[in-house]
Amino acid sequence: DFVEALRAVVGAPNVSTATAVREQHGHDESMHPCAPPDVVVWPQAVGQVQELAALCHRCRVPMVPFGTGTGLEGGVNAVQGGVCFDLSRMDAIAELSLEDFSVTVEPGVTRKALNKHLRGTGLWFPVDPGADASLCGMAATGASGTNAVRYGTMRPNVLNLRVVLPDGRLLHTAGPGRQPRKRAAGYDLTSLFVGSEGTLGFLTQATLRLHPLPEATAVTIASFPSVGAAVACTVQVLQAAVPVARIEFLDEVMADACSRFSGMGLPVAATLLLELHGSQRSLAEQQQQTEEIVRQNGGSGLAWAEGQEEREQLWSMRHNAWYAALALRPGCQGYSTDVCVPISRLPEVVVETKQDLQASNITGPMVGHVGDGNFHCILIFNSQDPEEAQRIHAFTQRLGRRALAAGGTCTGEHGVGLGKRALLQEELGPEGLDTLRSIKAALDPHNLMNPGKVL
Amino acid sequence: DFVEALRAVVGAPNVSTATAVREQHGHDESMHPCAPPDVVVWPQAVGQVQELAALCHRCRVPMVPFGTGTGLEGGVNAVQGGVCFDLSRMDAIAELSLEDFSVTVEPGVTRKALNKHLRGTGLWFPVDPGADASLCGMAATGASGTNAVRYGTMRPNVLNLRVVLPDGRLLHTAGPGRQPRKRAAGYDLTSLFVGSEGTLGFLTQATLRLHPLPEATAVTIASFPSVGAAVACTVQVLQAAVPVARIEFLDEVMADACSRFSGMGLPVAATLLLELHGSQRSLAEQQQQTEEIVRQNGGSGLAWAEGQEEREQLWSMRHNAWYAALALRPGCQGYSTDVCVPISRLPEVVVETKQDLQASNITGPMVGHVGDGNFHCILIFNSQDPEEAQRIHAFTQRLGRRALAAGGTCTGEHGVGLGKRALLQEELGPEGLDTLRSIKAALDPHNLMNPGKVL
Ligand SMILES: Cc1cc2nc3c(=O)[nH]c(=O)nc-3n(C[C@H](O)[C@H](O)[C@H](O)COP(=O)(O)OP(=O)(O)OC[C@H]3O[C@@H](n4cnc5c(N)ncnc54)[C@H](O)[C@@H]3O)c2cc1C
Ligand SMILES: Cc1cc2nc3c(=O)[nH]c(=O)nc-3n(C[C@H](O)[C@H](O)[C@H](O)COP(=O)(O)OP(=O)(O)OC[C@H]3O[C@@H](n4cnc5c(N)ncnc54)[C@H](O)[C@@H]3O)c2cc1C
Repeated sequence: DFVEALRAVVGAPNVSTATAVREQHGHDESMHPCAPPDVVVWPQAVGQVQELAALCHRCRVPMVPFGTGTGLEGGVNAVQGGVCFDLSRMDAIAELSLEDFSVTVEPGVTRKALNKHLRGTGLWFPVDPGADASLCGMAATGASGTNAVRYGTMRPNVLNLRVVLPDGRLLHTAGPGRQPRKRAAGYDLTSLFVGSEGTLGFLTQATLRLHPLPEATAVTIASFPSVGAAVACTVQVLQAAVPVARIEFLDEVMADACSRFSGMGLPVAATLLLELHGSQRSLAEQQQQTEEIVRQNGGSGLAWAEGQEEREQLWSMRHNAWYAALALRPGCQGYSTDVCVPISRLPEVVVETKQDLQASNITGPMVGHVGDGNFHCILIFNSQDPEEAQRIHAFTQRLGRRALAAGGTCTGEHGVGLGKRALLQEELGPEGLDTLRSIKAALDPHNLMNPGKVL
Repeated sequence: DFVEALRAVVGAPNVSTATAVREQHGHDESMHPCAPPDVVVWPQAVGQVQELAALCHRCRVPMVPFGTGTGLEGGVNAVQGGVCFDLSRMDAIAELSLEDFSVTVEPGVTRKALNKHLRGTGLWFPVDPGADASLCGMAATGASGTNAVRYGTMRPNVLNLRVVLPDGRLLHTAGPGRQPRKRAAGYDLTSLFVGSEGTLGFLTQATLRLHPLPEATAVTIASFPSVGAAVACTVQVLQAAVPVARIEFLDEVMADACSRFSGMGLPVAATLLLELHGSQRSLAEQQQQTEEIVRQNGGSGLAWAEGQEEREQLWSMRHNAWYAALALRPGCQGYSTDVCVPISRLPEVVVETKQDLQASNITGPMVGHVGDGNFHCILIFNSQDPEEAQRIHAFTQRLGRRALAAGGTCTGEHGVGLGKRALLQEELGPEGLDTLRSIKAALDPHNLMNPGKVL
């Protein structure tokens, strides 16, 4: 039968129908309850992915790509059953070229594994969504994170993708073996597959752009009298062309939670965490410029962490935001929702959202990649309580609509998955959605790739 | 009849069937002889573009978008006749937001007009293909140019596009009125339309990302003992994370031609023209780092131009490369062909190409955006001589194949148009081309938008 045919391709130990395995689930189960696939397969090579896909295609069985399951919008849920392709065992790092600042990785390689591999080369891969996600999964969701304001999101950092199409054919989005830094040769297939969330094909290899490691790094944290002041500071830092590497916003609830969770003793105030990269000398100048702008906006508390340990302490406080938020209501679950607005609209959107949280009686500290106008509410709730879950859902939709009304998007980096489909329709309008649908129909006419997601 | 119907939409003075007008042609006539449309229309508003497109769609008449005609691959040639939409009279600059670093322009706005409009705001739009092209045309071809190494090509600098689809419907690629700095909401339609060369729809408005003007700028020019040394210098500048804004290569033929054309007295040698942007202080450091690396690679002649006039003199020498090349063979025509390779392969590709030029007895000085591995040969020939034209064509194909064999692309910025279609097939392979074709068929099922181009 079908499962036997799968086994024939990858070997019996690499196919499982065991309930426990099928119910393996991502980080987002509070919002998107587990929908297990019928089978999980672990291909070991691209040829196997092709054969498995061709088999599923012939039998019209849904296929769900799985990276590391850190996605936040139910992307790996097998809402129509089918076969989950867990790609984590394909984990080669190939073709590192120091002169070209490029590397090619398979789907099992995570960003931390890659950066470890790069140690000593003077290069690194900066896109950092906090979680140690697979790089192909990050390409699939169009991830970004703290460094995007300086180094860009996944999109400009992917040079080529090797894709297994729904019928098993192999596509190289920039042509086989190619990796020029720029191309004007035909439609940009690479950008089309970045952010496609597994609905157009399997990303079985990504060629990425690397960046030189900064000579020196400095981090600081500053407290502001208001959200508006923190955002004004951000805009002025950008306008002054300070090449800021990271500029993260924490509202007073988040700052307080992080501070208590990490034992830091920060003021309960709108807070910015800033990181600068440069040569030793240029760093001094950037620091001075930044300090001036922070002060002009009423910011206080500035002290620069330059040693690695001190810096890591500040960032681990930031990266523990999730756990710090969970600690606000022990026993509850979390859901991190994500919007992005033009930066000029950020203060009003943040203030309205805080009022909404209060009026809705929701615990939802805010944290954001403020240099891009991107922020999250980490919503803490009891997912067993249907009334509360419903309240969280309604809040999320209102937040999305508020971002849309401000000229923004319902998701700056987490993707659409299951959770943002209705908002996506409002964001794009009928012509936009029709266009997405015709592309999906052209590349996956039987709707077998991750059905029920995005569209 | 049909032409009367066009007149009814835009008014008689905005429709022409006069031969002289129809034969109006772009900069590329030496390679791509004029193929005039049957009619030219000048719509004045997006609603008119929609009505005209709907009309052409109903009557199954080909449509060819026209920006400023500076494209180099025959993109505006009406190879199947039909209606040329000259969009130059829609030239509003709307919604400049200084806080959001964004602006929205119509297709009649050129990059120079935009930068003039921005004077005094502290912001600018850096993408610079030399020619004063329309910004929507630049989006349509995925243009880049000298500043791309620092500020990116058109792709990361377009936030939203208002597109008239082949049947007249209106699509906003990032949703109507939206301009977040990043989005993860559905497939990236903006990147799909950037570089689509008029084959998927009309770009009737572009929302662009602006950048802060640098506080200080310095330009220098250096001569190197070999191509390899100039490229090694480039790689080391990038590796040292010097945030170089422009790094242009001229081979010794080009350097000599430019020098003589502009009366500069440069050595006949592989040459780099470098521009640095930064604060006054950071500039000093960048200059010092750059000088060291240039010297280590045997470069000489370094002197920094910091005053505006001096800098403009150096860049006008570079921007006159086209005319300097034409002056090598008075009475002949020029064709600038464009490839892009991984930078580590650049020296061998350049050296082989120079040998090929010599063996083929072709005058073709080379100039390149070397920080991206992108270069052009400006091929000077007598387009009336069929043998010579054939020789130029054959050389161009060989150069494209050489770039492909080195892991590069047949075009880094000029696009595919008419000239690079065969090479595109080799670049992408059958699965890639099939994928492009299915996207084209999905969005333009009757093949009415700029037929005969790209695919
Ligand atoms: C604590 C925490 C913080 C986070 N912070 C951020 C943040 O700041 N910024 C940000 O952008 N994200 C953030 N995320 C989200 C998450 O890290 C990203 O969505 C990540 O990019 C997903 O990668 P993955 O390998 O885990 O993919 P998965 O979760 O396994 O899958 C995600 C989606 O991509 C598809 N997919 C995965 N791999 C492939 C493949 N090889 N081919 C085709 N489709 C594939 C799946 O089908 C699914 O639809 C955070 C997550 C957590 C848990
Ligand atoms: C001397 C010289 C130097 C150049 N150097 C560079 C360089 O360094 N880098 C670089 O990238 N380019 C360079 N170019 C090429 C040229 O400037 C670009 O191709 C430019 O982007 C084309 O813009 P345009 O408005 O002139 O478009 P056109 O030439 O009018 O059209 C080009 C293509 O785009 C389509 N198109 C135009 N406008 C629209 C629209 N509004 N909607 C849909 N489709 C449209 C057309 O149908 C055609 O296919 C150079 C050109 C010259 C003459």
